[in-house]
Amino acid sequence: MEVGRSIVRVDAFDKVTGRAKYTGDLIDRPVLEAAILHSTIANGWVKAMDISAAQALPGVVRVLTCFDAPDIQYPTPGHPWSVEKAHQDVADRKLLNRRVRIYGDDIAAVVARDALTAKKALALIRVEYETCPVVLEPREAMATGTPPIHEEYPDNVLRHTVSEIPLPPDSGFQCAQEVLDCPGYHAFSGHYETQQVQHCHIENPVSWAYMEGGRITVVTSTQIPHIVRRVTGQALGIPWGQIRVIKPYIGGGFGNKQEVLYEPLNAWLCTQVGGRAVRLELSREETFQNTRSRHPISFDVRAAVDQDGRLMARECVLVSNQGGYASHGHAIAANAVTGFRQTYLDQIAHRSEAYTVYTNRSSPGAMRGYGIPQANFALECMMEDIALEMGLDPIAFRVKNLMPLGYVDPLNGITCHSTGAAACVEKGRQWIGWDALREKYQNQTGPLRRGVGMAVFSYKTGVHPISLETASARIVLSQDGAVQLQLGATEIGQGGDTVFSQMAAQAIGIPTEDVRIVSTQDTDTAPFDTGAYASRQTYVTGHAIKKAGTLFRRKLLDYAGELFPGAEGLDIRDRTVMDGAGNTLITLADLAMEAFYSLSHSEPVTAEATAHVKDNTFSFGCCFAEIEVDIPVGKIRVLRMVNVHDSGTLINPALAEAQVHGGMSMGLGYALSEEMKFDPKTGRLLNGNLLDYKLPTAMDHPELAALFVETCDSSGPFGNKALGEPPSIPVAAAVRNALRHATGVAVNTLPLSPQRLVEEFWKGGLL
Amino acid sequence: MEVGRSIVRVDAFDKVTGRAKYTGDLIDRPVLEAAILHSTIANGWVKAMDISAAQALPGVVRVLTCFDAPDIQYPTPGHPWSVEKAHQDVADRKLLNRRVRIYGDDIAAVVARDALTAKKALALIRVEYETCPVVLEPREAMATGTPPIHEEYPDNVLRHTVSEIPLPPDSGFQCAQEVLDCPGYHAFSGHYETQQVQHCHIENPVSWAYMEGGRITVVTSTQIPHIVRRVTGQALGIPWGQIRVIKPYIGGGFGNKQEVLYEPLNAWLCTQVGGRAVRLELSREETFQNTRSRHPISFDVRAAVDQDGRLMARECVLVSNQGGYASHGHAIAANAVTGFRQTYLDQIAHRSEAYTVYTNRSSPGAMRGYGIPQANFALECMMEDIALEMGLDPIAFRVKNLMPLGYVDPLNGITCHSTGAAACVEKGRQWIGWDALREKYQNQTGPLRRGVGMAVFSYKTGVHPISLETASARIVLSQDGAVQLQLGATEIGQGGDTVFSQMAAQAIGIPTEDVRIVSTQDTDTAPFDTGAYASRQTYVTGHAIKKAGTLFRRKLLDYAGELFPGAEGLDIRDRTVMDGAGNTLITLADLAMEAFYSLSHSEPVTAEATAHVKDNTFSFGCCFAEIEVDIPVGKIRVLRMVNVHDSGTLINPALAEAQVHGGMSMGLGYALSEEMKFDPKTGRLLNGNLLDYKLPTAMDHPELAALFVETCDSSGPFGNKALGEPPSIPVAAAVRNALRHATGVAVNTLPLSPQRLVEEFWKGGLL
Repeated sequence: MEVGRSIVRVDAFDKVTGRAKYTGDLIDRPVLEAAILHSTIANGWVKAMDISAAQALPGVVRVLTCFDAPDIQYPTPGHPWSVEKAHQDVADRKLLNRRVRIYGDDIAAVVARDALTAKKALALIRVEYETCPVVLEPREAMATGTPPIHEEYPDNVLRHTVSEIPLPPDSGFQCAQEVLDCPGYHAFSGHYETQQVQHCHIENPVSWAYMEGGRITVVTSTQIPHIVRRVTGQALGIPWGQIRVIKPYIGGGFGNKQEVLYEPLNAWLCTQVGGRAVRLELSREETFQNTRSRHPISFDVRAAVDQDGRLMARECVLVSNQGGYASHGHAIAANAVTGFRQTYLDQIAHRSEAYTVYTNRSSPGAMRGYGIPQANFALECMMEDIALEMGLDPIAFRVKNLMPLGYVDPLNGITCHSTGAAACVEKGRQWIGWDALREKYQNQTGPLRRGVGMAVFSYKTGVHPISLETASARIVLSQDGAVQLQLGATEIGQGGDTVFSQMAAQAIGIPTEDVRIVSTQDTDTAPFDTGAYASRQTYVTGHAIKKAGTLFRRKLLDYAGELFPGAEGLDIRDRTVMDGAGNTLITLADLAMEAFYSLSHSEPVTAEATAHVKDNTFSFGCCFAEIEVDIPVGKIRVLRMVNVHDSGTLINPALAEAQVHGGMSMGLGYALSEEMKFDPKTGRLLNGNLLDYKLPTAMDHPELAALFVETCDSSGPFGNKALGEPPSIPVAAAVRNALRHATGVAVNTLPLSPQRLVEEFWKGGLL
Repeated sequence: MEVGRSIVRVDAFDKVTGRAKYTGDLIDRPVLEAAILHSTIANGWVKAMDISAAQALPGVVRVLTCFDAPDIQYPTPGHPWSVEKAHQDVADRKLLNRRVRIYGDDIAAVVARDALTAKKALALIRVEYETCPVVLEPREAMATGTPPIHEEYPDNVLRHTVSEIPLPPDSGFQCAQEVLDCPGYHAFSGHYETQQVQHCHIENPVSWAYMEGGRITVVTSTQIPHIVRRVTGQALGIPWGQIRVIKPYIGGGFGNKQEVLYEPLNAWLCTQVGGRAVRLELSREETFQNTRSRHPISFDVRAAVDQDGRLMARECVLVSNQGGYASHGHAIAANAVTGFRQTYLDQIAHRSEAYTVYTNRSSPGAMRGYGIPQANFALECMMEDIALEMGLDPIAFRVKNLMPLGYVDPLNGITCHSTGAAACVEKGRQWIGWDALREKYQNQTGPLRRGVGMAVFSYKTGVHPISLETASARIVLSQDGAVQLQLGATEIGQGGDTVFSQMAAQAIGIPTEDVRIVSTQDTDTAPFDTGAYASRQTYVTGHAIKKAGTLFRRKLLDYAGELFPGAEGLDIRDRTVMDGAGNTLITLADLAMEAFYSLSHSEPVTAEATAHVKDNTFSFGCCFAEIEVDIPVGKIRVLRMVNVHDSGTLINPALAEAQVHGGMSMGLGYALSEEMKFDPKTGRLLNGNLLDYKLPTAMDHPELAALFVETCDSSGPFGNKALGEPPSIPVAAAVRNALRHATGVAVNTLPLSPQRLVEEFWKGGLL
C-alpha cells in the first residue's frame, strides 16, 4: 500500500537544501524591472498625471498610466470559467485604474533597467486626484446617501442573498421566522464579529513575463496556472491561448494566490516594451495592501432549541466587508452561510441572509477556509452560548445535533458520505481530559484563570455543485520502468506532490519512489486542472490520478500480455509483472525497455485521463484548547491544544499532521493577535508589514497536537476527503469558548487581543 | 491544405529578433563553470597527475581527473537503443580517459566559480604521460605490428564487413568477382578518396546540469534529447530515468549533435559539486578537436558494363578512418557501401567490403549524409569516368541504370515507392542548358576553361530496417480552440517545427496559425522520439503527427457530436464544426470552451499517439554545376549550380528550397576547400578554428538554384520523403565532373583545392 504511508515529502531534500528554485530564482534571460505607482487616496479619481520627469530618468524604459491601459474590466478570482454569463465572476477592475477605490490602488507602472531606477521614477510621477469620502464599514457604505464605489452598485451592495430550507410539510410552520419566534422553544440570539487578516505567505507575489512565438509567457507564483492563463487573456483582451503560464515551486499561497492579481499587468507591461522580459515583484507592504485578505464579517444569529436540546431552527444574517474590489464576489459570504448551516442539523427550519458590501478597504478574497473560519466562529460561539444559557453540556448538545451519516444538504445536495464527527469530539475530549478540567476550572478567582473550550466544524471537499470540478492527469513511462506523473494540480507547500505520487503509485502498483512528479506546471503541456483551492486536489485530482493510473496499468499489462501470450491474471508487484500463479514474467525495467525499443512493437506507454467529479463530501473535526488568562493584562496563553480530524483515509499521515499543525497556527493568530488596521480617515492600511502586523511566532505556540479519526469516504478516490483548509477553522472559537469558561466573559469579536480583553473584562466587572 | 503551403517559419520572428533563446542564454540559477584538460599527446597513457596547485587556486571548487571518473565505458552515438547486445553501439570511452587515443583527449576537468578561474586551474595541472607512436592513417593502423589503440581490437579494425547480393539463378555466374572479370563486359576500376571535414554549426556544444528531486537535469544543445537521457544514464551507471534532459533551440547540429559527447561529463561534474549547477561550454577549437567530423574514406571500385551501357556488376571496397573512438561505429561505412549500391541497379551482381579502422585522429561521426556524400563522390566520379571511357553520354548512361520504381533492395528490403530521379535529371539538364554547354566547352585552350558536370544521388528516409523507427506526438486543446503540439522530435534549425505544425494542422483540419508547437523538449514530459537525424523526422514523426492529429480530430468531433445529437457528417472547416449539409454548428473556440467548462461533460481534449514505422523509401536528386577553372592558380569558380530534388510531396516549398540551399553550400565547401589537417608527428589538429579551416563564405557562392520534382510517396505520411540531408550529397561529384569536362583532368581526391589542382594539372600536363 502506497496510500497511507508516511513517506518523506518528495520535495523535502530540495527544499531544505535550497535546490528547489522559486519564481524569482528562475529568471533565465535579461529582465527589466517593473514598479507600480499606488494611489495616495482611497476613493476618487485620477484626474491627470505628469510622467515627463519619470520618463526622462536614465534607465527608465517606459512609464505607463491608467490613461494608457486597456479599457477592459476583468475578473480576478481563481474559479473555473463558466460559459453562462450569470455564473461568471464580477469583472470590476482594470490593469490600471483611473477610478481609485482603495488606498494604494494601481494607477501607473514604470518599467526600468533595474528596480531602484523604477522606484525612483515612481517618485517623479505627479498625480492630480479628485477625492471622495472614504468608507470603510459596510453599514456606512449601505447607508442612504453614501456615494457608490462602483457605479453599477448604487447602494454598494455587491450582492444580497436570502435562502431558506424548505420546511417539512408536517411541521406546522410556514417559515423559519415562525419557528424562531415560537414560544415553545428556547430562543437565542447573538452577534459575533470577525476581523480582517492576511495570509502572510513567505513568498510575496512575483512574476516575470516575456514574449516568444508571438505569445506571452508568464512565470508566476500561483496556485492556479491554468486560470492565470484565462484571466490574463481576458484582461488583455486577447485569445486565452495566447498566454502561456509556468508555475514553479511557490512559497505559500493560502488562497491569496488563488487570484489573478498582477500577472495580467506584468504580461501587458511586457507587451509594451517589445516583448522583453519584465519582472514584477511585490514588496511585503504591497502584498498587505494590494493583494487579498480574510473578509471581516459580522453575524447576527438566532436559534430555537427545544427542551431536549435539539436545534429546531437557526438564522444567520451576515454582512461581509468586500473592500474596494469584488474578488471572489459573493461566493465567500455565500459559503459562510452555507457553512454555518452545515455542521448541525436543524429539525425544522434554517434561514440565512448574506450581504457582500463594497467599502474602500483593501479587498478581501479567498483565504484558507473561504468564509468558514468566520462562520465557524459565529456558529461555535453560539453553540457554546446556547448550551450555557440552557444549562446543557456543551459537548453533548453539539453531538446531539450533528449532521448524521447520509445527510443531504437540502439546498445544494451535498451528501454526508462518511462522518467521524462524534468520534473526533470524543477523542479530543479524552485527550484534553475535558471532564476533569471543566470541573477543576469552575469558580476560579484571582488574576490568572484557566479554562477549556472546544469547537466543532464541518467542511466540504471541493466546489461541486457550485462550480465545475474537473482535473486531468498524465502518466509517462520512463526508460527505467519508473514513471513521470504530470498534473495541472499544484504543489503549493501543502505536500500535494507527495500525496499525488503516492496515489499514482497505488493506482499503478509500483513504489512511490518510482513516481517522479513534474512539479512545474506549464499550461502549454500540463494537463488541465483548475488548481489548488477548496481542499479539492486530493479529492478531485485524486480521481484523475486514479483513472490515469488505472489506464496506465492496463496498458502496461496489455503490453506485457503481448510478450507472454497465454499468461493469465497479470499483475504488477515488486517492480515486476507476475502471472496469476505468482510467476515473475518480466521486471518493469525490462518491460519498459521492450516498450521503447522493441523492433516488433514500440510503444512508449503513456496514459492521460480527465475526471469530471460530480460529487462532494464533508470533512469534520474539532479543536480543544486549554488556556490561561492573565486578566489584568488581557493576555491569553494557550497551554495545550489539539485538533482532531476526520478527513477520510489519510494518504500520508505524517503530512496530514503537518498540515494540521500549520492550520492550527494560522487559527491561533486569527484567534489572538492578527488584525489589519486601517486609518478611518484616509483608508490607509496602518500595519501592513510583519513588524506591526502581529503574526504569531514559534514563541507564541503551545505544543500542537493533531489526532485523526480515519473514515473511508465512499466518494473519495482513495477514501479521502478535504484536509487542506479545515485545520484552521475551529481554533478561534475553541479559544474563545475556553476564555468564557475561564472568566465567564463572552467575547464575541476577534481577535482576542489584550486591548479587547481588558475592555471586555472591565465591562464584565473583572477589572 | 496546410501541407504544401510556403508559410513563414513559425520561429522566424523570434530568431531574427533575438527573442529565441538558446541553451547558453537560458541559465536560470547560479552556475559554476567547468573546463576540460585535454591531453597533449595523441596516443598513450596518463601515468600520473598533480592537481594540488589547481585545487589550491582560489575560486576552484573541484578538480577531477581520469583517476576519479567512473570506470565505465559507454557508447556515444545517437541511435535508438537495442535490447540485443549484438546491435548495441560500441562502448569505448570513459568520462575522462587514462588511455589517451587522440590529441586533446579528455583527461581531467575543473569546476570553478567562473570560466577564467577554471582555465587558469587547467594550466596548473601537471601530467605525466607514457606515449605510444601516433597513427593517423588506416593502412598504417591495420599494418602488422602496429600496437592496438583499443586493446579489444588488436588489428585496429573496428569492423570489417563483406556483402554480396544474391545473383539471379539464371545468370550463369557464381559470384560478383566473375562478372567483374568477365571479358565480355567493359571493365572499370577506380580509386577515390574523401577528406575529413567538420560540421561547423554556429553554436558550439554547450550544456549545463543541476540536481533536483534527486535526479540530474541536463539542459543541452542536442538533436536527440531522449537519447542524451539514455547515454548519460549509461555513462554514470545510474538508471536512465534518473536523468532529465531539456533541449531548447539549437544553433545547428548537422549530425554532430546526434552524439552524446559532453552531457555525461557535465552531469557527472554536477554530482561531484553537490548537485550545484555546472556549465560546460566548448570553444570552437575544442569543437573541432573533440567533437565529430565527416569520415575520410578511400574507395576502390570496379564495374562491369555491357555494350548497351548497362551496369552488370559493381564492387566497392572502402576503408573508413574512424579516429580514436568508435562513435557511430561501423554504421557509417556500412551506410556508405549501401548508398554506393542503391542509386543504380546492377543487372547481375554487386559486392562490397568495408573496413572501419581506429587511428589517432579526432574521431569522425555522424554528419549530414552519413557516409553517402563520400560514397556518392566515388559513385558519381565512377559513373562519369565509365561514360567517358566508353564514349557514352554521361546522362543517358546514368538514366539507363537508375533503380526503377518498385525496386526492392535485395539486402535490406528498402523499396522504391516513388521515383522522380529521371525527371530530376531532365529538369537539371534543361535548367543548365547541358547539351549546348557540353558542346561549347569542348576543346578549350588557355588558362581559363569552363565545364559542366553533374551527379545523381539517392538517399533513404530514416533508418528502418537497420534500426528502430518510432515517434510519438501529443496534441493538447487550448482554451481558445487552437492546439499545442508536443513532440520528442527536434527543431535543429531545419524548419522542423514549421512543417510539423503544418502536418498537425492538416491532420486536424485547422489553420497552421492555430498550431502552437512546443519547441523545447523536456524528456520528463515530451513524447518519445529518437530525434533529428537520418532525414527521418518529417517521415517518421510525420506519421506520429498524422496519427495523433487524426485521433484528436475524432475526439473533437465526437465531443461536438454530443452537443448536437443527430447531426451527421461532422467536419472541421474554417475553425468551425459543420455538419454534412454544410451548416455551421459551433466554432472551435466555443467548442473548446464547452470541452473545458461544461458542467455536464468536461473533457479538455488531448490526443497522444505513437507511430512505429516499418517502412522506408528513397529520395532522389541531382546536381548540375557550371564552373570556370583558373588552371595556373588551381582555382575553381562555380558559375551556376542547381540541385533538383525528388523528396516526394513538399510540406513547405519555401523551406525545402532553403534546406537545399544550405545543403548545396555545405557540398561546395566539401568539394572545394574544407579539410581538417593533422600534424603527422603529434596527431595534433592544425587548423581547428574558423580562420585556418576554410569554410566557404557568402563570397565563395554562386547563386544557388533549387528545383523540385514532386512525387507523392505512398509510404510517406503526406507523400513526403527525405530532404534534410540529400542536398549536400551530389555537389562534390558534380563539380569534380565539371572540372574533368573543363580540363580533361580527373581529380579523384577531395577537396578540389588549389594545391591539389595545381599538382594534378602538372601531372596531367596542363602546367
